[in-house]
Amino acid sequence: MAKGLPKRSEDYSAWYNELVKKADLAENSPVRGCMVIKPYGFAIWEKMQQTLDKMFKDTGHSNAYFPLFIPKSYLSREADHVEGFAKECAVVTHYRLKNAEDGSGVVVDPDAKLEEELIVRPTSETVIWSTYKNWIQSHRDLPLLLNQWANVVRWEMRTRLFLRTAEFLWQEGHTAHATKGEAIKETETMLHVYAKFAEEFMSMPVVRGVKTESERFAGAEETYCIEALMQDGKALQAGTSHFLGQNFAKAFDVTFSDKNNQLQHVWGTSWGVSTRLMGALIMAHSDDEGLVLPPKLAPIQVVIVPIYKGEEQLAKISEKVAGIKSELEARGISVKFDDRDTLRPGFKFADWEMKGVPVRVAIGARDLENNTVEIARRDTKEKQSYSLDNVESVIADLLDQIQENIFHKALMFRDDNITKVESYEEFKEVLETKGGFISAHWDGTPETEEKIQEETKATIRCIPLENEEEEGTCIYSGKPSTQRVLFAKAY
Amino acid sequence: MAKGLPKRSEDYSAWYNELVKKADLAENSPVRGCMVIKPYGFAIWEKMQQTLDKMFKDTGHSNAYFPLFIPKSYLSREADHVEGFAKECAVVTHYRLKNAEDGSGVVVDPDAKLEEELIVRPTSETVIWSTYKNWIQSHRDLPLLLNQWANVVRWEMRTRLFLRTAEFLWQEGHTAHATKGEAIKETETMLHVYAKFAEEFMSMPVVRGVKTESERFAGAEETYCIEALMQDGKALQAGTSHFLGQNFAKAFDVTFSDKNNQLQHVWGTSWGVSTRLMGALIMAHSDDEGLVLPPKLAPIQVVIVPIYKGEEQLAKISEKVAGIKSELEARGISVKFDDRDTLRPGFKFADWEMKGVPVRVAIGARDLENNTVEIARRDTKEKQSYSLDNVESVIADLLDQIQENIFHKALMFRDDNITKVESYEEFKEVLETKGGFISAHWDGTPETEEKIQEETKATIRCIPLENEEEEGTCIYSGKPSTQRVLFAKAY
Ligand SMILES: [Zn+2]
Ligand SMILES: [Zn+2]
Repeated sequence: MAKGLPKRSEDYSAWYNELVKKADLAENSPVRGCMVIKPYGFAIWEKMQQTLDKMFKDTGHSNAYFPLFIPKSYLSREADHVEGFAKECAVVTHYRLKNAEDGSGVVVDPDAKLEEELIVRPTSETVIWSTYKNWIQSHRDLPLLLNQWANVVRWEMRTRLFLRTAEFLWQEGHTAHATKGEAIKETETMLHVYAKFAEEFMSMPVVRGVKTESERFAGAEETYCIEALMQDGKALQAGTSHFLGQNFAKAFDVTFSDKNNQLQHVWGTSWGVSTRLMGALIMAHSDDEGLVLPPKLAPIQVVIVPIYKGEEQLAKISEKVAGIKSELEARGISVKFDDRDTLRPGFKFADWEMKGVPVRVAIGARDLENNTVEIARRDTKEKQSYSLDNVESVIADLLDQIQENIFHKALMFRDDNITKVESYEEFKEVLETKGGFISAHWDGTPETEEKIQEETKATIRCIPLENEEEEGTCIYSGKPSTQRVLFAKAY
Repeated sequence: MAKGLPKRSEDYSAWYNELVKKADLAENSPVRGCMVIKPYGFAIWEKMQQTLDKMFKDTGHSNAYFPLFIPKSYLSREADHVEGFAKECAVVTHYRLKNAEDGSGVVVDPDAKLEEELIVRPTSETVIWSTYKNWIQSHRDLPLLLNQWANVVRWEMRTRLFLRTAEFLWQEGHTAHATKGEAIKETETMLHVYAKFAEEFMSMPVVRGVKTESERFAGAEETYCIEALMQDGKALQAGTSHFLGQNFAKAFDVTFSDKNNQLQHVWGTSWGVSTRLMGALIMAHSDDEGLVLPPKLAPIQVVIVPIYKGEEQLAKISEKVAGIKSELEARGISVKFDDRDTLRPGFKFADWEMKGVPVRVAIGARDLENNTVEIARRDTKEKQSYSLDNVESVIADLLDQIQENIFHKALMFRDDNITKVESYEEFKEVLETKGGFISAHWDGTPETEEKIQEETKATIRCIPLENEEEEGTCIYSGKPSTQRVLFAKAY
């Protein structure tokens, strides 16, 4: 912990990589592109999971579990889907190893070749819709509102901890409905669940929008998304919710008899967020001293560091701390008393700053005499002395304030970095000098979108849901346009 | 639900298979050997997970996540380990599909062959110990007490829902210690955690013991286990805890400098339970009417069925039920009000019996007049009328009684089915006619163990931890023996 991070303003990418490592969040594994999520990082992910899982259940969903493997032929059933996923998947071809004849170790047993190869799921629409076929006969079987927490694999060539890894953890919701309207409503409901989670728990403001055709999920008729802005001015897609139309129902022949006894194809949705959210969380608030965590997702919300000389002082401080700790815990606040005896307070301060603990309490022998403690908040680094008398409610208030403050800071940053431009020249200049979201008119064609991406690396992040209609001309083609869309370079 | 189950006494195996299906717990997937865990089954597994996870954390463990894939060469590092797992594993050899030239779909792209094959983890010792090497340098880094919840794959040829599947869900604890004594203590602690969970939550009595050498985990120096007895007289291994000695530390060269600055190899343990526990839970208590669940693991603890004619009666009943339901929920009891209007009460009764809901409340118009309800308990099928005045505490008591009662019933059954035998003739006769655990003297050699297994299909389930020393002679070889061991046919 002695050595600090690279400066965020000087090398954002190195800052991120070092932060993930130094805050003990994750590391690369011996398997190319797969990560090890370390206990502290995993504790944050668990908080995310618990919160989201409750939100899913509160909106009527249940969890289930579907197989890791997908028969190769299933992928091909939906034409767009296979195009989207076949190029980056892990393929299981054999089911046994045997001892090498030369004694050098184990080799694949050629006699144990699978008749049909299995794909490690990159997403589960195909295997789930093939199952839904047996579960759905009547309108009484609908809606079917399921979710699974799972690992998935997409063979990415360039990987980055949390942001893009070959294996990642996620949840995938898969719902089936009797009508188009219901399915669209579900797609939107889940988008709003994601947005609420991002804003209220991650303190990360997001734009709700829909993707253009070329950025849509492979097999969807409409992809809704939430897009966040990172501190380097790049956008990050934080969650997607797909209206699948009847595509998978048709591919797997999933029908139901409606109230008039007519056979209809089922309407579907799917929606997911992943450990990528960890990357977003890290980048949204952290600074040159390390991680800054929103209190609602911090595994340790308060750390208490004793400042003492000798056993006797420590014993007195520990006794006082025990009372504070149990009162805070009774309020549902998680507290760590860092009484490691081989480390100096300054080292501990830096350590917990690196790990993003929202509130730090330091308490020494003099504090005991004066009935005070020193409290430091991680977000603003302000330190202040407080009376011990009502320290628990001071801390509880402070946690709320921090949650709020980092959201507003991120919101101001985001709003300052949505720039309206009227020409392609201006577009390119803002993109190079300022970054962020660029709000511009676009003619609605994939051709223009592709050209702009080729020339500038910016993509259309979304067409915001609450867009105002506005007459204008496309910055690239000069053709007429009825609304602005948001461009950005993205993770 | 109209059609019942095969009788448990007539065809135990068909009874189990149909029960898993009819209670909506799980089903086979299109992928050979992999199961779909349905929402109701998964809700039970979630309760198990939450309970165990809290027990792990209360004993000082944290969760983390390690990769799904293991490089082939890693498996070979520990000689016994590779022998144990190489013969039944899913092997990833390629990372891309491409369109078939004849347009028939997608095929494996031969240009995308991996340099080294990857094994889908059958268990994670190798990849975890290769990671621990970088995490452990000093005695201050120990103990390392981690767990992961994950899916694993073992290519079983004969599969059965929950009991033996190619992919299954489990938790695997992996700990590292400075001394042999500490590691053995950890192994035993976790065995007792499993036993406590089985007995207090699953209401399933277990024998704690150690495995013989030939039944040990591949790579362990000692395997501790809990063994349960199913209603057909077969044993089921419900959890294992392994003392790994320094085997994996040596295979992956994991050392630490001790307090005297001497380099030592680390001592290890690993321990796991899986969705197999679902199979055990199902078989431990259920009957010809369906599932019998211990209240502590039942997703729905109380179902309330209205008995009514017409909307007006239903409205009055519903109003009363709303009050009961919210009072029960305030006590942490989960309640389902089954007001489906197209099904008769008798159908609903059978449906919830099949699903094992511990307490059923029926309430009709006459009950409202009399201020009573009818309460039926799933375990004994007793029905009784109670006053509505204190119905919530009656139900709470009943749930406790059911939890207790099914445990004692299972315990009596288990104790009645541990038979001491003194000769091989007697052994074979008890095995064929009565089944259950057979307590017999054994000479301690793998040869005798193997012969008995070949001739009778019975295996040594364990050497019980609290075994009395007793002079005797081996039932098979006649050689001297100092203690009895437990034999049984097993799942
Ligand atoms: Zn069809
Ligand atoms: Zn070594």
